Amino acid sequence: MGEELKLFRTWSTPFALRIVWALKLKGLEYDTVYEDLANKSPQLLEYNPVHKKVPVLVHGGKPIAESLVILEYIDEMWKQNPLLPQDPYQRAAARFWAKFGDDKVLESIRKVLMNQGKVREEGVEEALENMKHLEGELEGKRFFGGEAIGFVDIAVGWLANIVSVMEEVIGVELITEQRFPLLWKWIHEFAAAPIINETWPPRDKLVARYQAIDQASMSKQA
Amino acid sequence: MGEELKLFRTWSTPFALRIVWALKLKGLEYDTVYEDLANKSPQLLEYNPVHKKVPVLVHGGKPIAESLVILEYIDEMWKQNPLLPQDPYQRAAARFWAKFGDDKVLESIRKVLMNQGKVREEGVEEALENMKHLEGELEGKRFFGGEAIGFVDIAVGWLANIVSVMEEVIGVELITEQRFPLLWKWIHEFAAAPIINETWPPRDKLVARYQAIDQASMSKQA
Repeated sequence: MGEELKLFRTWSTPFALRIVWALKLKGLEYDTVYEDLANKSPQLLEYNPVHKKVPVLVHGGKPIAESLVILEYIDEMWKQNPLLPQDPYQRAAARFWAKFGDDKVLESIRKVLMNQGKVREEGVEEALENMKHLEGELEGKRFFGGEAIGFVDIAVGWLANIVSVMEEVIGVELITEQRFPLLWKWIHEFAAAPIINETWPPRDKLVARYQAIDQASMSKQA
Repeated sequence: MGEELKLFRTWSTPFALRIVWALKLKGLEYDTVYEDLANKSPQLLEYNPVHKKVPVLVHGGKPIAESLVILEYIDEMWKQNPLLPQDPYQRAAARFWAKFGDDKVLESIRKVLMNQGKVREEGVEEALENMKHLEGELEGKRFFGGEAIGFVDIAVGWLANIVSVMEEVIGVELITEQRFPLLWKWIHEFAAAPIINETWPPRDKLVARYQAIDQASMSKQA
């Protein structure tokens, strides 16, 4: 009981999926608490008083927040199926690309989704520029982690699902086979990989959610 | 020569100071390349093609970018005077607070500095809220790292200098002894600590730089 693992998540957030993937890849048992962000539980507020967000992983009663920080914790606590490489330089590269995913790729995708017109177009340009860097990073590799799914795959794994949902909702193609053949291949391999493939949220619910965000950005524009 | 360390920095950026501090705390010799960001060197663009920013640490010809990533690399490569604690949970906490410093504290300080009027006031409120969390984290400790300067001290070390410069420039007090006694004490101890105290940029140049930023935010407002 002292070493129990409990994950606070929502049904849709890709940040929590990172933790689901890491725990499953490590073969760890855990309990799940689904949060409604419109009505957060007292436990969530107690465990993450600074950001009041999911995911939070509670291990033996002690909470850890921030998904990339949780990933490092999991990788340090349980050595099987390492997420980060062993070599310090390669570890630095993995952390660099994970951060790039959050700071640049995610921000550009948000800019596309949450705006219309000219700002959305700028977002598309930025997203394509960012994808180019990811494409380069995949050269000669099956996954960002090499032959196996690793830290960067988990960090940018949301791409493998959300980009296609977003493309469907707003009708803008970002990642095509012509444009980014390696990234396109990675998306399909990653999304269908064992463990990963069983964790995606229901697509119809996600589409509805992104349609709502798109609608909201239209009224912001108007 | 294969293991040479070379740091690309500017005279003023606090992100590069993090690397200076870490290298000096580890007792490592390194060369410095001062960059002019208005006229970046071909080497910088080659070493950091994604962000085109400093700091970049080049070790034996191999570049590492992103200051927090560089800190982790230095700590993994050279074990003396560890920056991160040994315990995985405490390591996670240190990474959490370092990220909080960048995502929240720095953003609120930027909001204060780069705006006027109501947006600046909002920034001040947010900054004070963020400082409260840092104050809580210092309870019972001399440094964020405990008895010695560690990862979090290095990550939020810019506070120890820039907040007082900013207070002087814009005339808004953020960190007073009454409001945040522990943070106030930490600022003075950290700023004056061996190694740290010899690295601060010339104060008059920094004041002039922040005055220019403040002026620019006024014309943005007008």
